[in-house]
Amino acid sequence: LHHRDVPLLLPNAWDFASAAALTQAGFTAIGTTSMGVAGAHGLPDARGLGRAQTVALAGLLRRLPCLLTVDVEAGFSTDPAEVAALAVELADLGVVGLNLEDGRPDGTLADPGRQAELVSAIEDATPDLYLNARTDAFWCGVPNPLAVAVERAHRYLDAGADGVFVPAAADASDVRTLVREIPAPLNLLHLPGRHTLAQLADLGVRRVSTGSLLFRAAVHAVTSTALAVRDDSPLPADPPSYAAVAALLDC
Amino acid sequence: LHHRDVPLLLPNAWDFASAAALTQAGFTAIGTTSMGVAGAHGLPDARGLGRAQTVALAGLLRRLPCLLTVDVEAGFSTDPAEVAALAVELADLGVVGLNLEDGRPDGTLADPGRQAELVSAIEDATPDLYLNARTDAFWCGVPNPLAVAVERAHRYLDAGADGVFVPAAADASDVRTLVREIPAPLNLLHLPGRHTLAQLADLGVRRVSTGSLLFRAAVHAVTSTALAVRDDSPLPADPPSYAAVAALLDC
Repeated sequence: LHHRDVPLLLPNAWDFASAAALTQAGFTAIGTTSMGVAGAHGLPDARGLGRAQTVALAGLLRRLPCLLTVDVEAGFSTDPAEVAALAVELADLGVVGLNLEDGRPDGTLADPGRQAELVSAIEDATPDLYLNARTDAFWCGVPNPLAVAVERAHRYLDAGADGVFVPAAADASDVRTLVREIPAPLNLLHLPGRHTLAQLADLGVRRVSTGSLLFRAAVHAVTSTALAVRDDSPLPADPPSYAAVAALLDC
Repeated sequence: LHHRDVPLLLPNAWDFASAAALTQAGFTAIGTTSMGVAGAHGLPDARGLGRAQTVALAGLLRRLPCLLTVDVEAGFSTDPAEVAALAVELADLGVVGLNLEDGRPDGTLADPGRQAELVSAIEDATPDLYLNARTDAFWCGVPNPLAVAVERAHRYLDAGADGVFVPAAADASDVRTLVREIPAPLNLLHLPGRHTLAQLADLGVRRVSTGSLLFRAAVHAVTSTALAVRDDSPLPADPPSYAAVAALLDC
């Protein structure tokens, strides 16, 4: 799926309903969004608190007819053995891919050597999983994020990662450099208004994630619809019927 | 809240994020939607399968600054003692109200005497909870649903219910009859395109629920946003930023 004419667009779900809806809408591969998974359960994102909820979700989604890749934040542990055990647990549930990030809860980047150890532990334990190594160089505000991202990409690929995810990379020139310098499928985060799939395809990007976008769109729909009812305004969109959603959930 | 100039508008949430968003949008009382709670966890609605998830959600939402009333479907049991135990469990979590429905998974209405026993058991166990007795006469397609709804409303109020919910009642003449004949706050389901809050207020309705509407709007936002990204179309709405949603979840 990473080697077709168009980039793989991976929409990100956070519960059974969002995943079932995306599957029904025709997406045959979906990811999860850690913000959504955490937020649905009242947890903050990216603090390493949603391990149980992440595994439970993977278990729920196995009955959907789609490939599933799971955002495991930074692995919910700094211990390579524990992170490898998580990968095994998810693989046993039928998950085909993982995202592992090097951004830390305090906004800094993990030591690249230690991060490579996590990558290596996952690769050894679950060689068949597609391991997408995410570097948060652009998000963390380090000097020269482009060079840092490229260097880390090489470290993680050498340790066994299958692809590299560089969220927040946006400029075409940066993307071109990443594609040229990283010898593996490059995954970008779709930034509405700044990216189109067509542009990203032209630049050589192989995989495009929506991150928390769909979750944030859902949160927005909740309040905008409730406020429209309160104000007797037209609904912002015409939602599917009860019966249509019930059929979706009954799959 | 049931005795003000305008009806109490109760938007219905299904997870922490939807409830937090509604609270932040200014709603000081919210309900839950059993379709959403079930659907988020891969369960069908109204089959009595989501008891654990419903209780867990109530526990999560207690930290939000809002009053919470919980949709317990038909009580997740036909045993009055078990249904009363559920009410106690929820009251202990700070829940201030319950919705109990008399529609059955097979689309028929429960025996009204047995349903009144459930109402009575809840009332005895948790007299301070606002017990909203829902009759599904209009939904179940019984002959003369208006008369059935009025008769059941009286049975449930006699058993200790505090209010009556008649979803699917829509015609102004039916609503007028329900308001006149039911000596307790009447709760209706908001039907987009058929109701406005102003009309329902004029008819004497005291409480208006959104049911599964917000959940269905969220599901719709997920797929419409994902398809817009796929097709390089403008997003259907401009969702809040990552930082705004992160702040919401961190409350």
